[in-house]
Amino acid sequence: MTANTCKQIILAKRPVGMPTEEDLKMVEAPIPQPGEGEVLVRSMYVSVDPYMRGRMNDRKSYVAPYTVGEVITGGVVGEVVESNTAELQAGDIVLGHYGWRTHAVVAGNQLKKIDPTVAPVSTALGILGMTGLTAYFGLLDIGQPKEGETVVVSGAAGAVGTVVGQIAKIKGCRVVGIAGSKDKVRYLVEELGFDAAINYKEADRKAQLKAACPNGVDVYFDNVGGEISDEVLALLNRQARVVVCGQIALYNLEKPDVGPRMQSQLLITSSMMKGFTLGDYAGRLDEGVAQLAQWFKEGRLTYSENIVEGFENIVPAFLGLFSGENVGKQLVRLA
Amino acid sequence: MTANTCKQIILAKRPVGMPTEEDLKMVEAPIPQPGEGEVLVRSMYVSVDPYMRGRMNDRKSYVAPYTVGEVITGGVVGEVVESNTAELQAGDIVLGHYGWRTHAVVAGNQLKKIDPTVAPVSTALGILGMTGLTAYFGLLDIGQPKEGETVVVSGAAGAVGTVVGQIAKIKGCRVVGIAGSKDKVRYLVEELGFDAAINYKEADRKAQLKAACPNGVDVYFDNVGGEISDEVLALLNRQARVVVCGQIALYNLEKPDVGPRMQSQLLITSSMMKGFTLGDYAGRLDEGVAQLAQWFKEGRLTYSENIVEGFENIVPAFLGLFSGENVGKQLVRLA
Repeated sequence: MTANTCKQIILAKRPVGMPTEEDLKMVEAPIPQPGEGEVLVRSMYVSVDPYMRGRMNDRKSYVAPYTVGEVITGGVVGEVVESNTAELQAGDIVLGHYGWRTHAVVAGNQLKKIDPTVAPVSTALGILGMTGLTAYFGLLDIGQPKEGETVVVSGAAGAVGTVVGQIAKIKGCRVVGIAGSKDKVRYLVEELGFDAAINYKEADRKAQLKAACPNGVDVYFDNVGGEISDEVLALLNRQARVVVCGQIALYNLEKPDVGPRMQSQLLITSSMMKGFTLGDYAGRLDEGVAQLAQWFKEGRLTYSENIVEGFENIVPAFLGLFSGENVGKQLVRLA
Repeated sequence: MTANTCKQIILAKRPVGMPTEEDLKMVEAPIPQPGEGEVLVRSMYVSVDPYMRGRMNDRKSYVAPYTVGEVITGGVVGEVVESNTAELQAGDIVLGHYGWRTHAVVAGNQLKKIDPTVAPVSTALGILGMTGLTAYFGLLDIGQPKEGETVVVSGAAGAVGTVVGQIAKIKGCRVVGIAGSKDKVRYLVEELGFDAAINYKEADRKAQLKAACPNGVDVYFDNVGGEISDEVLALLNRQARVVVCGQIALYNLEKPDVGPRMQSQLLITSSMMKGFTLGDYAGRLDEGVAQLAQWFKEGRLTYSENIVEGFENIVPAFLGLFSGENVGKQLVRLA
């Protein structure tokens, strides 16, 4: 990389199953000069998120597919190097959505200035950003948890799950997490105050789940999908709410995901299941950030990040999401 | 049957798959004298409904299972023969829930007097009763149809489906029915004013469905379940609503119902799916009856009944529900 080039990762071809380095290629490109109204940003933290896998397919979804040959876009926190807008100055820390690049030139109005005194700036990608907001709106608006109810969350140790569980505790619920290792289970219960957590890889998980939900399940916040979700749905109480936030178990499947159809279960229990994306709440993001920041200041909400170093580790960190390597928000820090 | 005995049908044993006459047995029993506060009723119309199949299983559901050895309960319209309550007199027409019997002695407060001047009394079991109310609350409260939206209803020619489609037309929607014969398709379009209807038994049903929904599906009112529902779900628009009212295709299955899990589809479209039963609206039944009766008086809502004659035809009429023999509400009229 010369002084005038940056690194970026493009979608070289659409993956079948788990993406490879053939699909996601690192390329160098010149850094353009920022024009009028534009800003040159140097990336500090790059976000890798499960939803990006869906965008790599050529299929209608809640966000348009990535175009082959183009840079993978997504959240980034960076520092302004040069600015041609009055609103931003060199040295400002900003949130952008320009994706997997070391540098980018973007319109100033596509960047949001971050106040580094509220919390570490990386939280703009996590607890005070997309994943925190996803947990906030999904749980509160769709899940509607009430004091004393049982909330189960899958992918509980992930960026969204850790926040869902903590908000459910704030709301006075019994919170049960589902995660993929003993360490995660311990973390959820001991560090985050979950009432119970189970390791879905254990043979008796079904019995563990039932034991952890002696009064059934009122809210299921599903980040994962697949068989473990079938087992949670079997425990739904009357008028339960199922929040479908993600289906990470399925994103790399090459065959259709088949299992028991759950309409009967929803019918028997008069329960509701709803999918959503943060875009559905575009008009309410400030409300969410304000409430999350307030809880954070009060010490009622903590966060964890799994940070790997170096641009060349973006793809491995992204793939690690699907093998459950992260606890909390997965980020890549650039030098 | 002597003057002092009545006929009744009991659950002799729990069916596996489609019920047989071994499972549902006709027996005679003495007619007790009505005590204080009680009423002797002679049945005129007996209702047979798909949900009864679920109650024949020994499994938690939205209503308790029938007890082996007891009479199959369900809606009946009858005439008061003898009354020991001030509120009812011999000759009054009443709605009861005492089930498959020629006569019954029941507490007066378990009967609802019917005004025969509003509509034929049999409608208290259909359009102005359980099935009409089920259509009304399911479609309007859960489906929330808006003018110009596309509403698809399965089991469209059945007791609930015919009302769902007509209410959706009143609300200004494009209405597409799914039914099981050419005659039903013709009836829905020509008699009830559906915009389109398809026969799910035809080989190109998927293409027909797509053609009938050029703007996708905003509300799916599902009485049937199974593969045809998978095909409708594939056409959901953003923020669509799926009302799970029944799953008649499955009630006699001996194996678990397996198919594509639909969480991904709900996620991609931010759609909602909810099961319900009329019991969820117990506090609002009068509102529903009043509105349905109003539409009926205005000529905006019509009804159809499929009436078979004779107590001995109750079980065949019930089984006919699962082979789709009825158009509209299936009733048995007693001599």
